[in-house]
Amino acid sequence: IENQEGKKLTSLLEDYHYADIAEIINDLNEDEATYLIKLLDSDKTSDILTELDEDVREAILNNLSAKEIAGELDELDTDDAADIIAELPEEIVQEVISEIGDKEHAKDIVDLLRYDENSAGGLMAKELVKVNENWTVTRCVREMRSQAENVTRVHSIYVVDNDDKLKGRLSLKDLLTVSTETHIKEIYIPKVDSVNVTENPEEVAKIMSKYDLEAIPVIDEIGRLVGRITIDDIVDVIREEAEKDYQLAAGISQDVEADDSIWDLTRARLPWLILGLFGGLGAAAIMGGFEEMISKHAVLFFFTPLIAAMAGNVGVQSSAIIVQGLANDDFKGSISNRLIKEMLLALLNGVILAAVLLIFTWFWKGHFYTALAISISLVVVIVVAGIIGTFVPLFLHKRGIDPAIATGPFITTSNDIFGILIYFLIAKFVLGI
Amino acid sequence: IENQEGKKLTSLLEDYHYADIAEIINDLNEDEATYLIKLLDSDKTSDILTELDEDVREAILNNLSAKEIAGELDELDTDDAADIIAELPEEIVQEVISEIGDKEHAKDIVDLLRYDENSAGGLMAKELVKVNENWTVTRCVREMRSQAENVTRVHSIYVVDNDDKLKGRLSLKDLLTVSTETHIKEIYIPKVDSVNVTENPEEVAKIMSKYDLEAIPVIDEIGRLVGRITIDDIVDVIREEAEKDYQLAAGISQDVEADDSIWDLTRARLPWLILGLFGGLGAAAIMGGFEEMISKHAVLFFFTPLIAAMAGNVGVQSSAIIVQGLANDDFKGSISNRLIKEMLLALLNGVILAAVLLIFTWFWKGHFYTALAISISLVVVIVVAGIIGTFVPLFLHKRGIDPAIATGPFITTSNDIFGILIYFLIAKFVLGI
Repeated sequence: IENQEGKKLTSLLEDYHYADIAEIINDLNEDEATYLIKLLDSDKTSDILTELDEDVREAILNNLSAKEIAGELDELDTDDAADIIAELPEEIVQEVISEIGDKEHAKDIVDLLRYDENSAGGLMAKELVKVNENWTVTRCVREMRSQAENVTRVHSIYVVDNDDKLKGRLSLKDLLTVSTETHIKEIYIPKVDSVNVTENPEEVAKIMSKYDLEAIPVIDEIGRLVGRITIDDIVDVIREEAEKDYQLAAGISQDVEADDSIWDLTRARLPWLILGLFGGLGAAAIMGGFEEMISKHAVLFFFTPLIAAMAGNVGVQSSAIIVQGLANDDFKGSISNRLIKEMLLALLNGVILAAVLLIFTWFWKGHFYTALAISISLVVVIVVAGIIGTFVPLFLHKRGIDPAIATGPFITTSNDIFGILIYFLIAKFVLGI
Repeated sequence: IENQEGKKLTSLLEDYHYADIAEIINDLNEDEATYLIKLLDSDKTSDILTELDEDVREAILNNLSAKEIAGELDELDTDDAADIIAELPEEIVQEVISEIGDKEHAKDIVDLLRYDENSAGGLMAKELVKVNENWTVTRCVREMRSQAENVTRVHSIYVVDNDDKLKGRLSLKDLLTVSTETHIKEIYIPKVDSVNVTENPEEVAKIMSKYDLEAIPVIDEIGRLVGRITIDDIVDVIREEAEKDYQLAAGISQDVEADDSIWDLTRARLPWLILGLFGGLGAAAIMGGFEEMISKHAVLFFFTPLIAAMAGNVGVQSSAIIVQGLANDDFKGSISNRLIKEMLLALLNGVILAAVLLIFTWFWKGHFYTALAISISLVVVIVVAGIIGTFVPLFLHKRGIDPAIATGPFITTSNDIFGILIYFLIAKFVLGI
């Protein structure tokens, strides 16, 4: 189908949703993709562009002229347009912006470019419906109609004063049910949640999902209404945040996907593996220090992987629960209470596991004191691992570092080393060597 | 403040958002919480109830009469009301439902109770605005006003035919801009995304976030409009899904929080630890099988934790990327391509890591062949770990099992065992024992 049969293609794709077409284009090569984008209508292609993978979009935009890009941006909401411009090479940004037909739209986009991508300002769109508190219902409805033309979805009608400061919101229901000569002042709802332009996106996501909001107005430092953030952008923030935490826990340090190049994947994965490697060397050094025990108690050495694995598992479990609690803000009580609870929990788990281990090892190896030494060590190692797993993320969080970094290889590696050290020290003591 | 000073409390809490009050109540004891709920106005308490932690809510509802509970449910949207009823003890469900004042509301709630909690039907609400395609704009606006009274937020106006079958949706803009005598038939948009009542929530979340929808109509098997799902419910689905995957990856098998009891936490964590324990016993057994090497090459035994840790880390990394790719549906290419890519990736990482290891161990221990044996093993172990980490989640997914279970302890444990076995076999071969 790909061989220039333009008309057939257009009619074929006409009924597809832009998100579906974007998926198709992601799988095409650069020339085919550019051809398709040029072929289709710009009110569709602009939406397709926002849905494409970043590298595909970059390739396509490279093949378009500044005028063609501006044409696409004209069709987009200001937030999506600003995101695309932010990806363009610096040389052509000026040209593209000057080619945008609707000057008001261009101005809004330029405004948005000022904000840090990682802030409420970077997420918000300029499209919103706002009315002045001094208007009557009639004027309000008239103005709303013209404003609504530029706004894909009207979530809330915001009420501002003459200085553009956010005063409240208007319920569509109220607007429909009062007399047309009423002033907005008398019917608006003076309570409205809002966020500051500098707020970070995760905080915005928390506020919006806590209060079940579908859109939130964004105000600047002096309370003026400058934009709004809609829930669909927040869904992306939540997803990305969850993915980042998940990847960090798995020892993957950058936002990579399965389809990225081997080189990108290596860069994201190798650092954590090197950390693990040096952890392993540390463990080897510790074991080397107890070499003299090997002749009499070789069995002890067979159990090091078990001890290391249990230390790692417990540490990851404890840290994951803490990291998740911190992410959801549902934390009560002090750090010391938390540590005591985790200690009790680890002790309970440790004793159960050690009992199982003791019975198995005793029957298997037939040497009670060795089995006892290993089991006692296991309890201590699990308790220490639980404490480290709880303490490290809480400590990082206090220091303003993302605690998610503490799950995964970091906690596993340090717990491996501590675990093995504790194990051999206790075994040495119990066996009286 | 807690000692019965009702009036002060009411006026103090009046300006708080229900989500904030819910947070306060979560921290109170049962009597205080019940007192507060009884004190406050039911249009506020009903919303508070939906935001409470499940155990707190259960305790409070136990202290309320069926009539009081019905009063709360009267104020809630059908989906939230149905969720609460589903939590009530069976004996009082009948009574509560019969006490609900608005019979239409009660009927809708009972309808919702029929659906599996884990389906689109279990997520949807009955509140929606629907108009008949045969109505005129005037009649439509009139009906919409009365319907809108029961709907907290109007997302879309759905158009149905005389059989209640979903035909399309209506744009508010179009409604405002056409003559009042126009028939809806002429202006509605015949294309509307919808999901079936039996669809699973994750699939609904994918569809809504792919197409950036804020509400989606739900239809039954024969296409009748039965409800709608809003994006705020989907945000919860996405969050829960992400948390579940994260916990599974960390070896926590149920939905637990840091504040749950030690017993609940143990039940969620212990099974995976026991798995790890038996994995460790397996590793010990394998090492025991190579016991004769210990006299000549004790150094080999010092490196088992390193080998096991690297096998575990690589396995978790590979599986996490696959699990995430599967969750996001962004997978291209066949399983074998995926495995080949992962093999190359693991080979690249493995060779780099092995080179570092070789140099370190050689200088440290001064025995080139031992160092070589360990390094060669590392490469092979990493490649095998990568393949297992890729294959297992893909295999589970094919079998219809949640692949998230494969990250975490499951992959770590199996990779530990395989890793150690491969390590000793290769070392034995290279060192010619």
